[in-house]
Amino acid sequence: MTYQTPVNAMQFLLRHGVDMDKIIAQPKFAETNDELIGDVLNGAAVFARDVVAPTNWAGDQTPASLTGKDVTASPGFKEAYQSFVEAGWQSLAMSPDIGGMGLPTVVSVATNEMIYSANMALGLCPMLTSSATKAIEAHASETLKNTYVPKMVTGEWTGAMCLTEPQAGSDLGPVRTKAEDNGDGTYSITGQKIYITWGDHDCADNIIHLVLARLPDSPEGSRGISLFICPKYFVEADGSLGDRNYFYPIGLEHKLGIHGSPTCVMEFNKAKGWLVGEVNRGLACMFTMMNEARLFVGVQGVAIGERAYQAALQYSHDRVQGTPPNGGAGAPIVHHPDVRRMLIDMKARLMGARAIAMATAAADDLGDHTRAGLLTPITKSYGSDMGVDVASIGVQVHGGMGYVEETGAAQHLRDSRIAPIYEGTNGIQAMDLVGRKLRRDGGEAMRALIVDLNDIKTLAEGSSGEGEADLSVCIRALNTGIDTLSTATDILLNAKEEDALSVATPYLSLCGDILSGALLIKAVANGLSAGDAHAAPMASLARYHALSVMPRAASQLDFIRAGADPVFDFPMGQLADL
Amino acid sequence: MTYQTPVNAMQFLLRHGVDMDKIIAQPKFAETNDELIGDVLNGAAVFARDVVAPTNWAGDQTPASLTGKDVTASPGFKEAYQSFVEAGWQSLAMSPDIGGMGLPTVVSVATNEMIYSANMALGLCPMLTSSATKAIEAHASETLKNTYVPKMVTGEWTGAMCLTEPQAGSDLGPVRTKAEDNGDGTYSITGQKIYITWGDHDCADNIIHLVLARLPDSPEGSRGISLFICPKYFVEADGSLGDRNYFYPIGLEHKLGIHGSPTCVMEFNKAKGWLVGEVNRGLACMFTMMNEARLFVGVQGVAIGERAYQAALQYSHDRVQGTPPNGGAGAPIVHHPDVRRMLIDMKARLMGARAIAMATAAADDLGDHTRAGLLTPITKSYGSDMGVDVASIGVQVHGGMGYVEETGAAQHLRDSRIAPIYEGTNGIQAMDLVGRKLRRDGGEAMRALIVDLNDIKTLAEGSSGEGEADLSVCIRALNTGIDTLSTATDILLNAKEEDALSVATPYLSLCGDILSGALLIKAVANGLSAGDAHAAPMASLARYHALSVMPRAASQLDFIRAGADPVFDFPMGQLADL
Repeated sequence: MTYQTPVNAMQFLLRHGVDMDKIIAQPKFAETNDELIGDVLNGAAVFARDVVAPTNWAGDQTPASLTGKDVTASPGFKEAYQSFVEAGWQSLAMSPDIGGMGLPTVVSVATNEMIYSANMALGLCPMLTSSATKAIEAHASETLKNTYVPKMVTGEWTGAMCLTEPQAGSDLGPVRTKAEDNGDGTYSITGQKIYITWGDHDCADNIIHLVLARLPDSPEGSRGISLFICPKYFVEADGSLGDRNYFYPIGLEHKLGIHGSPTCVMEFNKAKGWLVGEVNRGLACMFTMMNEARLFVGVQGVAIGERAYQAALQYSHDRVQGTPPNGGAGAPIVHHPDVRRMLIDMKARLMGARAIAMATAAADDLGDHTRAGLLTPITKSYGSDMGVDVASIGVQVHGGMGYVEETGAAQHLRDSRIAPIYEGTNGIQAMDLVGRKLRRDGGEAMRALIVDLNDIKTLAEGSSGEGEADLSVCIRALNTGIDTLSTATDILLNAKEEDALSVATPYLSLCGDILSGALLIKAVANGLSAGDAHAAPMASLARYHALSVMPRAASQLDFIRAGADPVFDFPMGQLADL
Repeated sequence: MTYQTPVNAMQFLLRHGVDMDKIIAQPKFAETNDELIGDVLNGAAVFARDVVAPTNWAGDQTPASLTGKDVTASPGFKEAYQSFVEAGWQSLAMSPDIGGMGLPTVVSVATNEMIYSANMALGLCPMLTSSATKAIEAHASETLKNTYVPKMVTGEWTGAMCLTEPQAGSDLGPVRTKAEDNGDGTYSITGQKIYITWGDHDCADNIIHLVLARLPDSPEGSRGISLFICPKYFVEADGSLGDRNYFYPIGLEHKLGIHGSPTCVMEFNKAKGWLVGEVNRGLACMFTMMNEARLFVGVQGVAIGERAYQAALQYSHDRVQGTPPNGGAGAPIVHHPDVRRMLIDMKARLMGARAIAMATAAADDLGDHTRAGLLTPITKSYGSDMGVDVASIGVQVHGGMGYVEETGAAQHLRDSRIAPIYEGTNGIQAMDLVGRKLRRDGGEAMRALIVDLNDIKTLAEGSSGEGEADLSVCIRALNTGIDTLSTATDILLNAKEEDALSVATPYLSLCGDILSGALLIKAVANGLSAGDAHAAPMASLARYHALSVMPRAASQLDFIRAGADPVFDFPMGQLADL
């Protein structure tokens, strides 16, 4: 169950898959250069492999525990987290204005993937801290920022998001937690929150909760929700920590996976809170942070996929069974065609999703928020679904050993399964893609993407040669893919709302199949032109993708065209009846 | 977590999807008639729902335990199993010659599905008993048959299959367990077996193990393996039970799912065994039973899919969240288009796999062993893969609640994941389909199937009407599907071995996508002609399948045509490198 950080694969995409020169040419990344990026990736690689990865299995086998009012994290987590903070990884992509290193987001996609591969349950803690820090930095008063941000940028204090309540999950409109104005600049927060990731733990000195609550005179629904900071321990004027605030973990969920991540039920009993941003604008404050979190959940899918792939690859080299047609007796199972097919499928699909995640981050780094917004739901859903599929294939490669927990293959499947659910279910991502990102601007952002895909085709046509550099299969698949995406886009732009929403998920996966392939082809074409030694194996990966993954897209067109009828015709109430 | 047996859905397929009249017109099923089938289904339904289903959660939460040399099954299992035996369910499809009820296998597909839905972990015990009983009945001496079969037919004694060893799993050739001739008609068996399902337990008085072992003078490999009966307790001449035999469980696996099924490591230390069949022909004896076991593993996929579907359907009616476009505030999530799409997808896919399983059993009942042999690997793989997919969608419908173990949605996913692995991994099924079933007879069996698919098209054209009876979408999909299957079949018949094996899994799933759709269309067309009240909703299910599932098949053709190159080109040793 070792983990080797895929630095070369990441560097290949960073060098050839995104416009890194253009990104670091911007003044905001003046400090960034190729050498620094290389150093950061190599440093993170060693840290993830040597410090974080060894905690993964213990986290699964010994979940966090609640004793009295305190959660104790899994064995080894506190030490690994403190090393993470000391090494400065938390501030990597934070703005230098608040003490961060100011590296591009696309670099943090790579380093965060390493942390998630090493231990996804532990990696959630820095992810939430990052989102909370950015929310406070963007929306809170100077006093609040000065109080909390410096310790959060470093990771000395962690962040938590208290959004969900039993009746308010995907739709936060029905949030009932009450906030009362104390008249002294503070508020009293009362209510119960569930599914609070890293809501309590012993890895850091303080935990800064961002809590959604409703003031007594606020309107019903989502326009009456405000956002508050509730620190676990009060922060005195001199920066020292005071008494514990009046909210506590009262339960931990028993989950399918990510056992090392404490998922808390939090009870707020007149907890003291400070308003962030304007009254009744709490959801808007949260949603500005959502894109980043969604990007990184997509990255989690890639990360689990990568680790599952590595485990399967290792096992396939160790296990001897049967006689492969070209391998002879005593050859390991990697020589069996169907095992090989599973491995290449895992690798090609995770590389495709990784390329999408990097493209999303690159758009953000380039200030192209429209493009980043369009790609974010695809990154999140396609990456997280891929993670589950690839982890499941990883179990399959292990055969019976994959079903026994001790190999760890099953843990990857269990861990991966949360990513399609949290930070907005994948169904909600599809609605976001079709509703907000596609139809609201009349298809402008998607058409700009299609233009870029055509540019990739031209690029590939220019660099396709013979033998290992032959991209003709890729160019054909891309050509069909562009037609398919254009057709599907036109259908959705002209569809009634219910028709569009009924086929939003197939449309999203169609986008993902085409985009992942296109971005691999882009990286390969650029890599071939640059004479990169990894371009030849990457070309074979892209060809596999072009033959096996990209063609799925067109098979969804009939369904997308049909709209809501096939989805709604079956009388879904009749359980006992049929 | 209740379970309602889908008797109507099963009856629809039994009445209109298979040639039941032809089956029961055979002399061997002279006792069987429609009324009896109805009574059996309804009786099994009540039993599965009321007696077996309530034990499912306890089995997951409290796995079987090993104390000393004895395994204790999960709470409630012993009582449920004994009720199962008393009610006579074990002998349903057994031959009347040995005390069985002699019902067609196709009926036992329905009743076994109910048991597996109710508690798959518990249901494995009768499944193994059935296989062991038939192996003994087919290959053992009259004395052995008389000693063991009568108590096994009833389920008073259970069966277990001791095949796997650490170095001998998918390939049983390297089995090392030793058998020595005692010179008195018995043998001494010594060695260790792993993954022995229901290898020990306290639910029955005796456990009859079928053990693969090698005699000292036997050849290496699979042609030197013999099959032995090792009863847990010796059976005295008067039929009473004597001392315990010299083999014991020494460990239980900690598995991803089916926690209620004790998976034992068994240690044989000069255990006394009796030879079944001829020396060195042990594998052949086992393989005659394999088809039935594979059929029922496919049924397990359907069963878990059905229960996951029911749980998701129930949750989607209970959970209120957000405002569906046509549902209004306060409407449950079943009105959200994407939730609805997930539900119909679950239902259509599990009905398709159920139709395949019934077609396989019907071919067996009709004595068409070539057809049954062709369909068996498809039933096993397509059904078990579908089970995993559908259980995973079930988790997704539950949102965050699906990831928390207490809802039970996650258990279905965990339980389902074994089915693609055991009784021959799905990769081995694909090799069986392409190697033995397709290419060995030059495609004759597959061409006969394609002829039948064309007959279904003609049938559908004759019964397609307007509105709810409009099958035009189905007919189009079937037409494309038949072309696709014919093309893919020709490619594989003309391919080199390594090319064929590299694309065997995509070919199998292509077959499954087309066949499942075709069989649904057949049932609908017949149901419409017969004026069955369920034909209209079933037609909408078939239309969904024709738009969403069947079109996937054609998208695999390019890959199937490409053969081994895309699978083998990527240098799969280079983990650190790329």
